[in-house]
Amino acid sequence: MESKFQALKSRLMEVDDLSSAAGLLYWDQSTYMPPGGAAARARQTATLTRLAHEKFTDPGVGKLLDELGPYEESLPYDSDEASLLRVTRRKYERAIKIPLEFTAEVANHTSESYQVWTEARPANDFARVRPYLEKTLDYSRQAANFFPGYEHIADPLIEPRDYGMKAADISRIFANLREELVPIARAITAQPPADDACLFKNFPEAKQFEFSMDVAQRFGYELQRGRRDQTHHPFMTKFSLGDVRITTRSRENKLSDALFTTLHETGHALYEQGIRMELEGTPLARGTSSGVHESQSRLWENIVGRSRGFWHCFYPRLQSIFPMQLGDVSLDEFYRAINKVERSLIRTDADEVTYNLHVMLRFDFELAMLEGNLEICNLPDAWRERFEADFGIVPPDDKDGVLQDVHWYFSLIGGGFQGYTLGNILGSQFFAAALAAHSEIPAEIESGEFGSLHTWLKENLYQHGSKYTAPEIIERATGTSLSIEPYIAYLRTKYGELYELGD
Amino acid sequence: MESKFQALKSRLMEVDDLSSAAGLLYWDQSTYMPPGGAAARARQTATLTRLAHEKFTDPGVGKLLDELGPYEESLPYDSDEASLLRVTRRKYERAIKIPLEFTAEVANHTSESYQVWTEARPANDFARVRPYLEKTLDYSRQAANFFPGYEHIADPLIEPRDYGMKAADISRIFANLREELVPIARAITAQPPADDACLFKNFPEAKQFEFSMDVAQRFGYELQRGRRDQTHHPFMTKFSLGDVRITTRSRENKLSDALFTTLHETGHALYEQGIRMELEGTPLARGTSSGVHESQSRLWENIVGRSRGFWHCFYPRLQSIFPMQLGDVSLDEFYRAINKVERSLIRTDADEVTYNLHVMLRFDFELAMLEGNLEICNLPDAWRERFEADFGIVPPDDKDGVLQDVHWYFSLIGGGFQGYTLGNILGSQFFAAALAAHSEIPAEIESGEFGSLHTWLKENLYQHGSKYTAPEIIERATGTSLSIEPYIAYLRTKYGELYELGD
Repeated sequence: MESKFQALKSRLMEVDDLSSAAGLLYWDQSTYMPPGGAAARARQTATLTRLAHEKFTDPGVGKLLDELGPYEESLPYDSDEASLLRVTRRKYERAIKIPLEFTAEVANHTSESYQVWTEARPANDFARVRPYLEKTLDYSRQAANFFPGYEHIADPLIEPRDYGMKAADISRIFANLREELVPIARAITAQPPADDACLFKNFPEAKQFEFSMDVAQRFGYELQRGRRDQTHHPFMTKFSLGDVRITTRSRENKLSDALFTTLHETGHALYEQGIRMELEGTPLARGTSSGVHESQSRLWENIVGRSRGFWHCFYPRLQSIFPMQLGDVSLDEFYRAINKVERSLIRTDADEVTYNLHVMLRFDFELAMLEGNLEICNLPDAWRERFEADFGIVPPDDKDGVLQDVHWYFSLIGGGFQGYTLGNILGSQFFAAALAAHSEIPAEIESGEFGSLHTWLKENLYQHGSKYTAPEIIERATGTSLSIEPYIAYLRTKYGELYELGD
Repeated sequence: MESKFQALKSRLMEVDDLSSAAGLLYWDQSTYMPPGGAAARARQTATLTRLAHEKFTDPGVGKLLDELGPYEESLPYDSDEASLLRVTRRKYERAIKIPLEFTAEVANHTSESYQVWTEARPANDFARVRPYLEKTLDYSRQAANFFPGYEHIADPLIEPRDYGMKAADISRIFANLREELVPIARAITAQPPADDACLFKNFPEAKQFEFSMDVAQRFGYELQRGRRDQTHHPFMTKFSLGDVRITTRSRENKLSDALFTTLHETGHALYEQGIRMELEGTPLARGTSSGVHESQSRLWENIVGRSRGFWHCFYPRLQSIFPMQLGDVSLDEFYRAINKVERSLIRTDADEVTYNLHVMLRFDFELAMLEGNLEICNLPDAWRERFEADFGIVPPDDKDGVLQDVHWYFSLIGGGFQGYTLGNILGSQFFAAALAAHSEIPAEIESGEFGSLHTWLKENLYQHGSKYTAPEIIERATGTSLSIEPYIAYLRTKYGELYELGD
């Protein structure tokens, strides 16, 4: 058994080597690759991704998993070995159900669709992408139907990103959240907006980076096992547990870009750097779901990085770096500026209160499209109506409406959005649990220390990688299942202090 | 046939994708990878290299090559298709003769040997590496013996790098060269050395880079299809014909480092960027041999980049960039400084005259070791004796003697050195042929133009990639087989003007 287990691990390691190399191809493409490399790079990425898939779905993997069944049953559920077999089997059984030709066909289609979208969006031309989107929806349904027996057609599409959550669960959670959130957002946006002009002065980029990377390291991000580069779209990527990188974006005339994208990606990176080295090279060596992953970027970016306590410690430093720009801006003014809430058109620019309304709109539309209750041709109108209902404003065009996000034009419809809001909810839930265990955390944050919080998160969440599903790890770490209460309480307290919330 | 040819091309493209990704893993490791990534990176590189080898030596490739034999015979020798089949067959037949387990065993051994060398060299401790080197020699003989029927045991080891050249040919060429070179080197080094103090002032690195990359671009290096980064050991690497990168090294207090490593690597890059796009992704899309490749780095670095004509144009610019450092240094002084000839211990620091003596020593020793005429235990003494005979000085220790180069401690013994001197010889031979076709080249160089030279090299050499072997392309481009005469003439003219050469 031991030798069969090792044989399986070797195969998984080979898959991981191929996937990590594909990851590096992407990182390089986004950071340093000269433009002339693009055509070959697309081919190289496709080859490595395909080979990784072929190696993972090789019948030999299935045979080893079968033969190792009794071994798994003989081991404790919590053991690394049983967890590896359990999680690998789950992923294997999913992977073998999707024919390679289908994946290749979809990849061809979405790459074409993406090209069209890059031109259609600036031209505000939904009609151009419509046939592509219709075909994408068709592919999305076909993809779901490789997994018959689902409760909701979106379930099989949600599964690979948020295993253990079904469309019905998420819809219920989102409906409850929306009920609480809409009045809060409405109460805030009825008041005069915060003045955030202080964030839009001229801030030399090198200094922005230095400050934000200093904070990232204080959070616990290790540069011996990581690095930061500049890209148009910020992201976190991992090539091994010893090499977890972030990329960020900066603008000279917008302080918040480099700062908060760095803290956001640092949150993702802390999760990956915190995984136990014993899980290296296996399917367990990554965060367990998109929602749980996003909870860590949100926790470090928003709950910590936009808190008054944090800036109590760090604002004087920021002022000393930018004395001309911030010398006469008080801590209170700055704090209000970085927590400005407003009704805006663009999801990625949204604040932490209204962000979820953007997400829920998309999630609901995904379900409706997949169900057949929302036709692509009606999407732009539906978008405007729902937007007006939720935000009280109507997008003036499709460019900043239904065309704004790349997701539907670049991959399948379904499963791509819920993680953002699940992350907001879970960030608060994990933070509240850490606080319950370590009441000294707020005082530590005020003095620029993050050790208790980081250690609690490593012990209760990060180290386990994907050993436990999202519902399992939430229960283990916080003692309850997913709950919106800590998040609502967090928003009420924080924004109640900043604005009149009524009620 | 057409479809079989396409099937073969697809397989080769897949091999190329894997090799290119392995190349990127190495580039990243040398430039930006955080230290924590090292362990996994070694594994990832080994996996991709092994998969590329497995895919290339798959019996399906051999079967296609067999089936395509008649097709190849029906095509002109010069056609891309016939060339692809011919070169692929040659490489395939070599590759299948080396067992994968042997390659893995050697890789393990050399990686261990390399580790030991990194400690033994600074400690001047040849005894520590001796057992590793003995084993390496044993492996080198075994490797050669996978190819029975050789004339000289080094031939099969030289073949993959300098196909078409045998140990006997190279020995003969080197013996002739040595006969000419030793008296020249002796005559020069008997005279007072040139004063090169002007190169060792303080030169801010950013400005060094800017100047040298400006020159690289004027030579014809396209940054749309390339880029430059900083590494400890400079190199050129290619991920596709649209992505040919160089790395260089700089020192603030040594102007020549960044400058000449850039021009050297640019020469390699011009060769790769000049390959016809039709050959992309196939075994034809790379330089044809180590000697021919090196001829291009030497041509652009030395024949152009250390010529008086070149600096006639570029020295005033360099002076305007470094007015404090070079303002009172005349063109003549500068020209003498960058062409200083001296008896030095270290190959990589050697000038273009004495460099070859370093190389020939190593080449002769490789042959002797492989023949069994030089035992590893006698190597340090043999080194000292030969060094004294060639250079008139004795290395004071092994650190700067037999331990100085990584080659023998990192890969097999045999075939790793001859390319450097073949490159010097061929650089002059190609340059002379270009000059014969375009007498305006020297005048162009004096005015900072390199179009005629670059175009001649592209047309006669670069575009063909590996379609022709080194002997074939030398004959095609220069009208004769390899000849040391242009090189000797070049040295006599250039150094005769700088020093008394007697004779």
